Amino acid sequence: MSEHVYKYIEITGSSTTGTDDAIRRAIAKAGETIRNMHWFEVTDTRGHVVEGKVAHWQVTVKIGFTLED
Amino acid sequence: MSEHVYKYIEITGSSTTGTDDAIRRAIAKAGETIRNMHWFEVTDTRGHVVEGKVAHWQVTVKIGFTLED
Amino acid sequence: MSEHVYKYIEITGSSTTGTDDAIRRAIAKAGETIRNMHWFEVTDTRGHVVEGKVAHWQVTVKIGFTLED
Amino acid sequence: MSEHVYKYIEITGSSTTGTDDAIRRAIAKAGETIRNMHWFEVTDTRGHVVEGKVAHWQVTVKIGFTLED
Amino acid sequence: MSEHVYKYIEITGSSTTGTDDAIRRAIAKAGETIRNMHWFEVTDTRGHVVEGKVAHWQVTVKIGFTLED
Amino acid sequence: MSEHVYKYIEITGSSTTGTDDAIRRAIAKAGETIRNMHWFEVTDTRGHVVEGKVAHWQVTVKIGFTLED
Amino acid sequence: MSEHVYKYIEITGSSTTGTDDAIRRAIAKAGETIRNMHWFEVTDTRGHVVEGKVAHWQVTVKIGFTLED
Amino acid sequence: MSEHVYKYIEITGSSTTGTDDAIRRAIAKAGETIRNMHWFEVTDTRGHVVEGKVAHWQVTVKIGFTLED
Amino acid sequence: MSEHVYKYIEITGSSTTGTDDAIRRAIAKAGETIRNMHWFEVTDTRGHVVEGKVAHWQVTVKIGFTLED
Amino acid sequence: MSEHVYKYIEITGSSTTGTDDAIRRAIAKAGETIRNMHWFEVTDTRGHVVEGKVAHWQVTVKIGFTLED
Amino acid sequence: MSEHVYKYIEITGSSTTGTDDAIRRAIAKAGETIRNMHWFEVTDTRGHVVEGKVAHWQVTVKIGFTLED
Amino acid sequence: MSEHVYKYIEITGSSTTGTDDAIRRAIAKAGETIRNMHWFEVTDTRGHVVEGKVAHWQVTVKIGFTLED
Repeated sequence: MSEHVYKYIEITGSSTTGTDDAIRRAIAKAGETIRNMHWFEVTDTRGHVVEGKVAHWQVTVKIGFTLED
Repeated sequence: MSEHVYKYIEITGSSTTGTDDAIRRAIAKAGETIRNMHWFEVTDTRGHVVEGKVAHWQVTVKIGFTLED
Repeated sequence: MSEHVYKYIEITGSSTTGTDDAIRRAIAKAGETIRNMHWFEVTDTRGHVVEGKVAHWQVTVKIGFTLED
Repeated sequence: MSEHVYKYIEITGSSTTGTDDAIRRAIAKAGETIRNMHWFEVTDTRGHVVEGKVAHWQVTVKIGFTLED
Repeated sequence: MSEHVYKYIEITGSSTTGTDDAIRRAIAKAGETIRNMHWFEVTDTRGHVVEGKVAHWQVTVKIGFTLED
Repeated sequence: MSEHVYKYIEITGSSTTGTDDAIRRAIAKAGETIRNMHWFEVTDTRGHVVEGKVAHWQVTVKIGFTLED
Repeated sequence: MSEHVYKYIEITGSSTTGTDDAIRRAIAKAGETIRNMHWFEVTDTRGHVVEGKVAHWQVTVKIGFTLED
Repeated sequence: MSEHVYKYIEITGSSTTGTDDAIRRAIAKAGETIRNMHWFEVTDTRGHVVEGKVAHWQVTVKIGFTLED
Repeated sequence: MSEHVYKYIEITGSSTTGTDDAIRRAIAKAGETIRNMHWFEVTDTRGHVVEGKVAHWQVTVKIGFTLED
Repeated sequence: MSEHVYKYIEITGSSTTGTDDAIRRAIAKAGETIRNMHWFEVTDTRGHVVEGKVAHWQVTVKIGFTLED
Repeated sequence: MSEHVYKYIEITGSSTTGTDDAIRRAIAKAGETIRNMHWFEVTDTRGHVVEGKVAHWQVTVKIGFTLED
Repeated sequence: MSEHVYKYIEITGSSTTGTDDAIRRAIAKAGETIRNMHWFEVTDTRGHVVEGKVAHWQVTVKIGFTLED
């Protein structure tokens, strides 16, 4: 197991609902092309404001995944 | 559009419900005096603990807005 | 009151529900051995991904508490 | 002179020309409402990309100014 | 109390005496226009040197205050 | 629009002319393989010195782009 | 001597007098339960403001100590 | 040579031997798919502890490489 | 497993041999009083120099461990 | 070549023209006393504002150079 | 005046009295070999603890000075 | 002893063997011109990659030394 090598991508998910949902969407989108994702770390939490209200929540996550052999 | 100039304020919203709600309250309060808010960025997430439970969630956001002509 | 001295612990709470719940669990666990907790600050937000979905949300908080006399 | 007290604002200037021009525009805009600006510090350099080219350069500066008596 | 919203200003106080006095002067100056200041945080400690001695101590503080209703 | 998911690449452009030109070249090179680039952020500004003069300006940018459907 | 292992605690001292006194009080309080303290590092300098004046100075220090055998 | 454009990947190597070996393994794994690697920078050094001993050393490196024409 | 709560200690190990050995000694010392250590992260690498040579390597690690029920 | 040892100086160049020119002047001034400069990294970009306009651009660079044998 | 070029040194002053005095001693020592010092910035505040009390206050400052022609 | 004043240099050592050896070489080189070195702190760990392998390890250290009277 000491042979494991992790790679990373950074991706921003967007949601009209809230921060947790924005993270779930980022993971789901990344999962369309990456298998074997293991963990994520939040690196930035932002959002768009339209007419005085939060219109979109945007959370950037760094995702670690292992390469398949 | 290249003429746009953004200014910023930093404000802490408070909620008994959770972090997303604290952000919504910060945006709402800022909106009482600022028009044309465009985006926010979370800079700090804290809270008060009373009798072993989270009593208030406090999230600080930096809000970018354009000046009205 | 100027005599107050605060100490800190850092602790990671885990939840299958979301980030706010992970914070609540960290506070609850700390409260089993520490009395007089006053505030917390989020220092890290991470999570485990299993089969392309967030399996556990893990939030690290730094908790400030006063010593009892 | 030891009585000087500085205040700060943070502002983003935008330009289609380049980074130095974006800074000049931020200073010019701030100067419409603030007198006695003394110095600035660049805190962020970004830009928008349209059709594969830099469309706007956006530089954020923190400006220090003294209050008029 | 969960409704509290904090705003911030950043201000540099100057003193010929020392760092603590520079902080006191920053707070005093801010108090001329802001009521309901609650706390401050030191963000920068600098000074001017004239003829090989510290001529002015300059301390920058970020001050949190609540808005009056 | 709340469905937007951004990905990032980090790339260093090089120029004998100056920093803005190094950024333009980084964007141009990235545009050879990436469509739908939206924004960039400067993360590092360096350069090589040859015989006491700046020979190459090297600016690293993080570029955000959306995935095409 | 190469066997020395240091542990750390983080503690906030409070004073009505100034920042140096707040540090002295943090060290004194820590010394009630920890022997063999060797050094400290200031990690945060804050304070409470009451009626426009600094009411309490609060300095957080990280203290390194060796374990007794 | 002023035309050089560098891209980056971030990768974590793992070793049961030590930190330098973990770096060598990260470089070796990256080299299976990337040619023209030029330099690396260590961004994180961690490890797993099993039964009170370091079981795996994990070092994350950011690798810069040039694109082949 | 979602119930896991991690706590942390920060500890500096010292060695006359090198950085990896200093980490091993920090883990070994921590293991005398803490069970269920899971991982470590290097937060500082320093050393003492005596007569122009490295006399002791000192590496500070933050160790995460679970509480036993 | 593995024997190369780099030293560093940090220096601020000033220009009435712009940021790139301020960097060139910093390098030129350093070159009066240092030979074998290899690279620079920008660590701070500031400027003085006089009568509402940028009067001097000030860029601080860290310069790496090798020692001559 | 736009020709001004600043250089920097970093130096730690020590005092048995307090932090401000440690800064004064650092400036005084630097002044023995450097003329034309203009400003300083505090980069680190530490101290030694002997028998449960602060024995020496140690403050590190970065000093900017101009070169004499 | 409270009179001690420390100065610092930053230097990068290079080795074909590993990170610890690069540190030893940086200290040795600095020792050719500086006496009374007391401690070092690692500020950067990098390396050159040639043909897919680590060719040189490069570690930057900040060295503290006292001035001789």
